Amino acid sequence: MSFDRLIEKIAALQNPTVAGLDPKLSYIPEHIKKEAFALHGRTLVGAAAAILTYNRGLIDALAPIVPAVKPQAAYYEMYGWPGMRVLAETIRYARSKGMFVITDGKRNDIGATMEAYAAAHLGATEIEGKTEEAFGADALTVNGYLGSDGIRPLLQVCAERDKGIFVLVKTSNASSGELQDQQLEGGNTVYRAMGDFCEEWGRELPGRFGYSGVGAVVGATYPAQLGELRAALPSTFFLVPGYGAQGGGAKDVSPGFDRNGLGAIVNASRSILCAWQKAGVPGEEYARAAAAEAVRMRDDIMGELGEIRLPE
Amino acid sequence: MSFDRLIEKIAALQNPTVAGLDPKLSYIPEHIKKEAFALHGRTLVGAAAAILTYNRGLIDALAPIVPAVKPQAAYYEMYGWPGMRVLAETIRYARSKGMFVITDGKRNDIGATMEAYAAAHLGATEIEGKTEEAFGADALTVNGYLGSDGIRPLLQVCAERDKGIFVLVKTSNASSGELQDQQLEGGNTVYRAMGDFCEEWGRELPGRFGYSGVGAVVGATYPAQLGELRAALPSTFFLVPGYGAQGGGAKDVSPGFDRNGLGAIVNASRSILCAWQKAGVPGEEYARAAAAEAVRMRDDIMGELGEIRLPE
Repeated sequence: MSFDRLIEKIAALQNPTVAGLDPKLSYIPEHIKKEAFALHGRTLVGAAAAILTYNRGLIDALAPIVPAVKPQAAYYEMYGWPGMRVLAETIRYARSKGMFVITDGKRNDIGATMEAYAAAHLGATEIEGKTEEAFGADALTVNGYLGSDGIRPLLQVCAERDKGIFVLVKTSNASSGELQDQQLEGGNTVYRAMGDFCEEWGRELPGRFGYSGVGAVVGATYPAQLGELRAALPSTFFLVPGYGAQGGGAKDVSPGFDRNGLGAIVNASRSILCAWQKAGVPGEEYARAAAAEAVRMRDDIMGELGEIRLPE
Repeated sequence: MSFDRLIEKIAALQNPTVAGLDPKLSYIPEHIKKEAFALHGRTLVGAAAAILTYNRGLIDALAPIVPAVKPQAAYYEMYGWPGMRVLAETIRYARSKGMFVITDGKRNDIGATMEAYAAAHLGATEIEGKTEEAFGADALTVNGYLGSDGIRPLLQVCAERDKGIFVLVKTSNASSGELQDQQLEGGNTVYRAMGDFCEEWGRELPGRFGYSGVGAVVGATYPAQLGELRAALPSTFFLVPGYGAQGGGAKDVSPGFDRNGLGAIVNASRSILCAWQKAGVPGEEYARAAAAEAVRMRDDIMGELGEIRLPE
């Protein structure tokens, strides 16, 4: 019902990072695509098959190093139902290797509709007495613009099945301030108001290490706000995108952590997925290159944090 | 690139409503479920098969009366990839019957990821030189919390393929005010600021009838705000949920329309989908009951509007 499982895994691997699985076709080595297209043609099914092979290789290489993966739903949805099948298979494979899986779907709706998303991504779907997991991740990113009606249905599923959510608070993109930085009467920014909601919602999902099951997405590209929010939201665990390709470095993400080196997990997608291209190695070595980049990123961030300690 | 196709269809049918396709299993008649479960078991595949049969019957009955359908993505996603396949098949079937299809996905992300969602739901997916439509709707609901970076990738696809988006502005749920009604410095509410963004984004997608391709979701449960926004956002077409089961009536939705009876399309889901249960007729008559309820709703709203006229 909290992020305790994730936090334990981060401490065990001494690595507060997550590998984003955003599998663009241009990132996938030729030998994988060639085989998939030979079997299925240049179709949605063929692309999905290539993505699954690619993801499995990455997961095999990353599982001993990185505690979590974050598949971005859009890159599966764009391949239609075959892509969504591969999203489910990727999640299952990563969990079978012991990884914590965060589906980045930024889902949002209200009432019974949000219950449907909660069942889809974190819970199970009931079919007249039988139940089946549709996607079955450990955590889901969500958008809180609709208020508590959009969040409460998730809290129940999280409590029942030991899952968590990350609510968009201050996103990493250049225009995030258009709405999120606006000042509300009373002096709060919109993002800070959303952060305060996370603390409130999180009270229903307390965790053993001080962090609830309601986390927040806060971009590495805004280190000042990251520090402000770390201080203001002591029970809210942060998912921090924007490291690497988007411009954030180890110094930029460090304000997101507490004095135990906990409180945040930093995502990198492109830098890990394309490590083989950047390193100029053959496509056959993509997984090894991804693992090497994941180690570099871990060491970069751990160089700032020193050690990750679980509080008593 | 605008909502012109939708507006022409609304005027032709003299009906400014959209039928929400939120196919909960409890809404589906026993004879449909029995056949699907006999073939596929009580599985995600079996549930998805029942939903497709149910949706096709509804679309056949509603297409002569209602200009548009709005499948709610969550109710397909909860059945995993088989559900998503049925979402695509439902969209294709409705379009083949001449209906305008609005996928209610409330998607949101930034940059290349939002491009992936745009390709998935409104455009086409490129697979090394070949293209295929993943879901292929006419319009998509989106959430603008991330700012322009989350909307601009959609505008391009809308311009190229004559599609539209509806941005969440003031949602119909009870807690929508927690964030959306907060006052910003300068006197705007958050929802009004989001509405102003819609006008701004819409300038890139002008339409022949005065409405752009960037619409707004504004709930029937807040008639005062609906009227305020209609006056303030003259180029923004409204998708209005909350009629019927959520409590809004014809008088509540009328402030969303302009003097030509244009400017809004009102959604009902449950009241149409469950009309057969409410009427107490056998499940075999579900589609006929849905059509009767759609006619009642049309007449109810048209009683307020009088006539829908296309401006010269």
